[in-house]
Amino acid sequence: MPSIEVALTPALINKEELNGKITVVVDILRATSCIVTGLAHGIKEIRPIKDEGECRKLKHEGYYIAGERGGIKLQGFDMGNSPFEYMNDELKGKKVAVTTTNGTYAIHESMGSNEIIIGAFLNLSSICDYLKKLNIPVLIVCAGWRNNVNLEDTLFAGALIHSLQGFFEYHGDSAALALSAYQSSRRNLTDIIKKSDHAKRLGEEYVKDLEFCTTIDKYNIIPKFTNGSLLVT
Amino acid sequence: MPSIEVALTPALINKEELNGKITVVVDILRATSCIVTGLAHGIKEIRPIKDEGECRKLKHEGYYIAGERGGIKLQGFDMGNSPFEYMNDELKGKKVAVTTTNGTYAIHESMGSNEIIIGAFLNLSSICDYLKKLNIPVLIVCAGWRNNVNLEDTLFAGALIHSLQGFFEYHGDSAALALSAYQSSRRNLTDIIKKSDHAKRLGEEYVKDLEFCTTIDKYNIIPKFTNGSLLVT
Repeated sequence: MPSIEVALTPALINKEELNGKITVVVDILRATSCIVTGLAHGIKEIRPIKDEGECRKLKHEGYYIAGERGGIKLQGFDMGNSPFEYMNDELKGKKVAVTTTNGTYAIHESMGSNEIIIGAFLNLSSICDYLKKLNIPVLIVCAGWRNNVNLEDTLFAGALIHSLQGFFEYHGDSAALALSAYQSSRRNLTDIIKKSDHAKRLGEEYVKDLEFCTTIDKYNIIPKFTNGSLLVT
Repeated sequence: MPSIEVALTPALINKEELNGKITVVVDILRATSCIVTGLAHGIKEIRPIKDEGECRKLKHEGYYIAGERGGIKLQGFDMGNSPFEYMNDELKGKKVAVTTTNGTYAIHESMGSNEIIIGAFLNLSSICDYLKKLNIPVLIVCAGWRNNVNLEDTLFAGALIHSLQGFFEYHGDSAALALSAYQSSRRNLTDIIKKSDHAKRLGEEYVKDLEFCTTIDKYNIIPKFTNGSLLVT
């Protein structure tokens, strides 16, 4: 049975062990939830960019630009980091460049693995089906928050491990923690994530975003990182 | 209600926020379990030392010296890192200097807090009673493993938060994760810790140590860090 492991933050990725694995990058609030939503609603490609200035330049190359720092939309950007902004019909068939605090960083730190795919509660079962089909070792990379562990990404890791029991064997204490935390939280996942540090930072006005981002299996797509962009192939 | 928080590794301690708090340092396998055991069996003081060479010098100042690196007893040392070595009658009333991989480091990184006490499953209820009496904010510092998160220390943090519900209010995602992981593991704690990375590193011959270190409430003492040493006052 192939292994499934968890890096609770990008800093905890063992870079020498990326080769031969598929990485599932997750940043539930809200980068990877936005990416899944946007591609499901017809955006052609989403390009993750680490640096704000570099992202800004892509505006002149036909990209819509999206970005936040610490949860706040960047000045002059077309979009912030709400999944509802990614449902806009105007974006269908268009390209979006996105820079976010932790999600983009997690994608960049995962380079070196065989393949990078994007996970969220929104496409949980699609991810499971895809991983079962591939049947190679998996590393779940939690974006976390400024290289600290966070609740929502860890619970997603636990949900994925839980759903893959019998097909993958989890290895390591981080995976064991994620799984046991998920097992005692699964019946009231949204309420528990509403009490997370990230939910507190976002505040009351983002409750709608949070409830959307903790919806399971709304979409049936697998965003893949291909030539620097996220696409549905 | 005072707060209770968790640093999942010493690297995640927010040093600017130590003042005003009591820290509970935990390294279940096996440093803090040894410290609790030794002081309960009559050792007069246990001096945690970061550096192996410095610890070795204390041999000439009347200390028994104890230490391991990566689980292996250091050459020329009187004791390794098994709680059973700390029960030796010969040590009664004596001083022990100990250097360990992660536990000593966690104690040193906690300096700056109002008080440092030593926690283990072995003295869980004593720690709870003491914290309730003090009624000031608490930070649980998990020693972890080479600045990575580990299972057994996180589950102890969860057990402590669980036992203090109604008296302390937990803050932060790390505390939420520790609590939910403990809640789904509490009925088979020893078996779950037997599957941890640390248990695998120690191997079969340490099962007796591991079972001892996951025994709850064997001792009724509070080791406190006082003038560089751990004492029962």
